[in-house]
Amino acid sequence: MNVGLPLFGEAVRAQGAQAVDVDWRIPAGGNPELVAALSRMWGPHAARVNAANDEVVRRLDEGTPMLLRVGTALEEVPGMEDRMILHPGPPLEWQEFCDPLRRSVRATVMAEGWATSPEEAQEFVVNGRVRLEPANHHDASIPMASALGPSAPVLVVGNPQGGNLAYSAINQGPGKTPWFGVEEPEAIERLAFLREAVGPVLREAIEAAGPVDLLSMVAQGLQMGDDAHLRTQATTNLLIRHLLPYLVDADHPARTVVARFLSSNHLFFLNLAMAAAKALTDWAAAVPDSSVVVGMARNGTTFGIRVGGTGERWFVAPAPPVGEALYHAGFGPEDSAPDIGDSAVLELVGLGGVAAAASPSLASFLGGTMADAVAATEAVQRICVGSSGRFRLPFLDLRGSPLGIDVRRVVETGITPAINTGVLHVCDGTGQVGAGVARAPIECFQQGLLALDAALR
Amino acid sequence: MNVGLPLFGEAVRAQGAQAVDVDWRIPAGGNPELVAALSRMWGPHAARVNAANDEVVRRLDEGTPMLLRVGTALEEVPGMEDRMILHPGPPLEWQEFCDPLRRSVRATVMAEGWATSPEEAQEFVVNGRVRLEPANHHDASIPMASALGPSAPVLVVGNPQGGNLAYSAINQGPGKTPWFGVEEPEAIERLAFLREAVGPVLREAIEAAGPVDLLSMVAQGLQMGDDAHLRTQATTNLLIRHLLPYLVDADHPARTVVARFLSSNHLFFLNLAMAAAKALTDWAAAVPDSSVVVGMARNGTTFGIRVGGTGERWFVAPAPPVGEALYHAGFGPEDSAPDIGDSAVLELVGLGGVAAAASPSLASFLGGTMADAVAATEAVQRICVGSSGRFRLPFLDLRGSPLGIDVRRVVETGITPAINTGVLHVCDGTGQVGAGVARAPIECFQQGLLALDAALR
Repeated sequence: MNVGLPLFGEAVRAQGAQAVDVDWRIPAGGNPELVAALSRMWGPHAARVNAANDEVVRRLDEGTPMLLRVGTALEEVPGMEDRMILHPGPPLEWQEFCDPLRRSVRATVMAEGWATSPEEAQEFVVNGRVRLEPANHHDASIPMASALGPSAPVLVVGNPQGGNLAYSAINQGPGKTPWFGVEEPEAIERLAFLREAVGPVLREAIEAAGPVDLLSMVAQGLQMGDDAHLRTQATTNLLIRHLLPYLVDADHPARTVVARFLSSNHLFFLNLAMAAAKALTDWAAAVPDSSVVVGMARNGTTFGIRVGGTGERWFVAPAPPVGEALYHAGFGPEDSAPDIGDSAVLELVGLGGVAAAASPSLASFLGGTMADAVAATEAVQRICVGSSGRFRLPFLDLRGSPLGIDVRRVVETGITPAINTGVLHVCDGTGQVGAGVARAPIECFQQGLLALDAALR
Repeated sequence: MNVGLPLFGEAVRAQGAQAVDVDWRIPAGGNPELVAALSRMWGPHAARVNAANDEVVRRLDEGTPMLLRVGTALEEVPGMEDRMILHPGPPLEWQEFCDPLRRSVRATVMAEGWATSPEEAQEFVVNGRVRLEPANHHDASIPMASALGPSAPVLVVGNPQGGNLAYSAINQGPGKTPWFGVEEPEAIERLAFLREAVGPVLREAIEAAGPVDLLSMVAQGLQMGDDAHLRTQATTNLLIRHLLPYLVDADHPARTVVARFLSSNHLFFLNLAMAAAKALTDWAAAVPDSSVVVGMARNGTTFGIRVGGTGERWFVAPAPPVGEALYHAGFGPEDSAPDIGDSAVLELVGLGGVAAAASPSLASFLGGTMADAVAATEAVQRICVGSSGRFRLPFLDLRGSPLGIDVRRVVETGITPAINTGVLHVCDGTGQVGAGVARAPIECFQQGLLALDAALR
């Protein structure tokens, strides 16, 4: 039996004897501070942490977020002000905003009617005439480089078990759009179209349809090849089928053009899944003492997590690149902005990269075969506290998707969650240039572990 | 090396020696007439048959049937008369019709306005006032106990490569409906609803949408858990998403109630897939000398196949029971009508039971695990000439679905295709009582082989 470096086992085998290698690594890379924290959290504090984690996982697994209605950000989002724009990821000063997010914010300033050119919009922001705040600080979760202004329509999701609400924007769809970092006139028109047409038609349809159990649809979508992050087509179709009679019956004159938009937007469900995940993680975040990650978001400059037992604190590191990517023709790694968006909240509830084994079409990002996708899910299971009761993976004999990312396990093993995500152009406003997998930076989890250890002592 | 009975291999192993068993069986059960025919068809006639089979498989694989329009049976279906009803399966005298199909025919007589009660309808038929003909003889394919009257709306599917057309009824949906063998007023109302509302609204929507490439949708559906026979939910949703703008934009006052019907009918695509398969098999049937099955249909009394090289002849045997079934609460095998409907045409083009490995939700009928579903598909591969280029199976590393059932291979191995299908009540007009798998009777294939052998000599 050889523990650790395979070298020793090989030497034994070279002499004709048998040897079994155990892939053991020094926990936390041998960092004494981290090892000491881990010792306490697996030792004297383990019972407290584990009990808290069980409750966190129960909340993540049992909450049933419902799409309640569509309203405007100003009407619905707590703390929203009439000169405020919400952005993804941890808090950030304007000077540190990445290029795609700057463009998206300027597009939003123009769509709100506060400026008529990117230059004016830039000046408007620099002069502090609009407050920029993280969507996460307003119970909201928005994907990629989305920016949310007060007049924008929002999806209102309620978690009946927790009594809390969560919000997202309406997905902006494909093409030249601000959530991909585009600020051209076409992108600004899209925001107006969402406000004037998509929001009102959906509002009417959902009012008529009644509340929609979002994660029950996602659970079905996972049986149909969705990971509910990079691929939401099956789940989007389930929603379209569900809403069909109400869309057909809508009074709004824009109903046909909105139907065309829905019909060609296979990521429509993404934002609904994110709002549902946000409702769950916010409910779970109220449990003290937990070592489970209850927030994970990126603004294109920093990557941040929140840990159950440390309240609203962010633990941040530089945003990682999006690797293992497939690029649109003519683009490559040198064109790519760092990882961005709040959508990593999906990986916290058993979806996205965590559920890679659900999605044959994602296997192409993960080595090419389903065996690679299955291996990705199995790797994440090692850093998770439990598994989902509702999200079942056909390629793993309907085993539940990994649930509850534990900072202790992440720091100990060095395995960080993989996040399925899009890639934006780094600087020229082209928009999306590919899709791939981002690896969460270990530093966030190390900081989170130390902070939780301090809080527990 | 032990060939045949495992007994001998075991005896060798019992004495401590090593033995490998080869699962060899006597071809065609040792029947001398069949063995002689097989010898000729694998011998002197093999080159001719194989070349024909290659062309048949090419046609089954490369035709791209398009949904062109919706019309009425009288307008569209070749040879349809104003006092004619089409039924599934091989030809049959009324006296031999099974109970569910009798009920469906009577319901159709009433829906056409030729009678006002089941008794009157019965008399109408018995007195020969309506001609009963197989849908298959009119380029049409209709599922379960469907009956198609002249005023019923039909789906018109064109195969541009072959220049031929094929037809199906509009799927009648769930509940108390004639295609499940129900003749209650509710069932007759459903036929009127299809004629007055669903047909006209779909006609309008498809006219606006333009031709729909049906099997490209099915190919996507197979990546989303459909087998396109027992389960067509993903493919139905893809169609709904595609038609959404046109349904929303329809002028017809019934568009909302039709939308509700579409939204709650997860088998809506079944009839479209059947018409597409019928277009392919009819095109393939024009190739002479082939030993591939180009027709397979049941009327609830007999099960019949047609073989490429023997023209329009049916080779029939008594309809088998539907085994391996899951029953609705309160029902069991004793309540079950024999296997019925034209939908087995799907198994001829790489769908249904042949594509079991596509569908986790079908695994429950096939032993419970995906390994059972994969084994079912692998068994069918042994009796097939080729595999599908477009229907790919995620659980078999995207290998193509088996294509081109060869009577030579069926007779030689004794393996017959398994058909995924619903189960109807045998006698009381309850409707559907379950779903399961029917095994095609070997006798049909044996007759087909002998007839082809005679034709080739």
